[in-house]
Amino acid sequence: MPPPNTPLTNIRSDRVKSVRALSRRSVRERTGRFLVEGPQSVREVVRHQPELVVDLYLTADAAQRYGEVVDAAAAADLHVHEVSEDVLAAMSETPTPQGLAAVCRVPSASLDEVLAASPRLLVLLTHVRDPGNAGTVIRGADAAGADAVLVSDASVDVLAPKVVRSTAGSLFHLPVVTGLPVEATIARLREAGIRVLAADGAGTVLLPEVDLGPAHAWVMGNEAWGLEEEVRAQCDEVVRVPIYGAAESLNLAMAATVCVYASAAAQRG
Amino acid sequence: MPPPNTPLTNIRSDRVKSVRALSRRSVRERTGRFLVEGPQSVREVVRHQPELVVDLYLTADAAQRYGEVVDAAAAADLHVHEVSEDVLAAMSETPTPQGLAAVCRVPSASLDEVLAASPRLLVLLTHVRDPGNAGTVIRGADAAGADAVLVSDASVDVLAPKVVRSTAGSLFHLPVVTGLPVEATIARLREAGIRVLAADGAGTVLLPEVDLGPAHAWVMGNEAWGLEEEVRAQCDEVVRVPIYGAAESLNLAMAATVCVYASAAAQRG
Repeated sequence: MPPPNTPLTNIRSDRVKSVRALSRRSVRERTGRFLVEGPQSVREVVRHQPELVVDLYLTADAAQRYGEVVDAAAAADLHVHEVSEDVLAAMSETPTPQGLAAVCRVPSASLDEVLAASPRLLVLLTHVRDPGNAGTVIRGADAAGADAVLVSDASVDVLAPKVVRSTAGSLFHLPVVTGLPVEATIARLREAGIRVLAADGAGTVLLPEVDLGPAHAWVMGNEAWGLEEEVRAQCDEVVRVPIYGAAESLNLAMAATVCVYASAAAQRG
Repeated sequence: MPPPNTPLTNIRSDRVKSVRALSRRSVRERTGRFLVEGPQSVREVVRHQPELVVDLYLTADAAQRYGEVVDAAAAADLHVHEVSEDVLAAMSETPTPQGLAAVCRVPSASLDEVLAASPRLLVLLTHVRDPGNAGTVIRGADAAGADAVLVSDASVDVLAPKVVRSTAGSLFHLPVVTGLPVEATIARLREAGIRVLAADGAGTVLLPEVDLGPAHAWVMGNEAWGLEEEVRAQCDEVVRVPIYGAAESLNLAMAATVCVYASAAAQRG
């Protein structure tokens, strides 16, 4: 691999400021770019969607430690910049970005593309507000082999640094379509022959009673108050994960993971 | 209900200091007491294990808002103390204890008692270090109807404030036995006819292939490095949750929840 350029050391440069500004949603929306931090997420975007990477920044230390990322970046002809620890810290919101960060283009997945691929398992997030929950649900959907994750316009921004980090790279493994209006999206899923299942603690049908063989989408709502009445009414079934002990509920990420794994078990036998 | 005593307002009192000291593990171990904070956890200990509660502290505001907790405490003849917001804040590690906290005796569940009750589903945590993970696994085990959670001596203290909080009350719903030596515990489980299943990303058997009907215990290891070789060797099977997509793994709490729900599905039909 060629030696990286002269290290960037000026923490007050315009470049550093413009990267740092990506921690703000308004700047991400205006520029169509976002920041990916840490070895796991950076490795996964370089490996799975190198076409998204605009600039890859890494410290000399990280260049040595994560040689496979540097090699993959070189193979994909990416712009790699060596930076000082200070510059990387100034670019990032994270206390410890571990030597690596990448400015990436916002992925352009669309609902049309997702539906054109005849999906069998989808997840639709609506009013999910906690970054860690949203990221963990995307990771669980990826692990269970879901075809895509759909995110409503009233949810947390999945390109926020905390969400990106908590997906552990899954953001780059499957299409994540954002900014969707919930009700119109549910209507389109149903038109496409996809059963729409609301996952809600107030559900009347228990998870083990649902036939998860046919194509379906799980709709997951807000952490505290679940799904809105109108959204539940639009779904084919409102499904509850059974609680066998005395716990009041599962948290959103746990319930979502149980649901998508039940789907995978039914569809993959 | 009788009006609470004169409110405690001195944040420098010995009582406040001794409650605050319970945030330290050494003090919890020496005194055999720990602090339960927030409406959900306090409600659950008062409801399910009032005999553990030594003193219940609440603000005038919380006494009004959580009348059902006050009534249950009165019915159980607990010592209830009204405190100022400042006193409650000084007692607690939490930025927002939401007006309620209880000093409780450490639950005294033992492995003997657990085994005497012919358990069908157990979880054994070893080297689990993250408080949120430990708490979430206990909550998931409760939800799936597990008979008890066993915690090795090399794990996070489940009576630490962050763990207590993240169990969302489940700590008081099922026996949680702590301080167990891992290898001797696995040996005792096997002697008792309980199959011991290691859950590990390096497992050779996939979760859907395992017969989860008979009594069994799931052994969950460290977040980062899983289970030690010697522990895996002692188990009947080393089981992996299948990853159908491109995700590298599930996190500990998600994997544990998928496993215990698979167990519940198999045992409860």
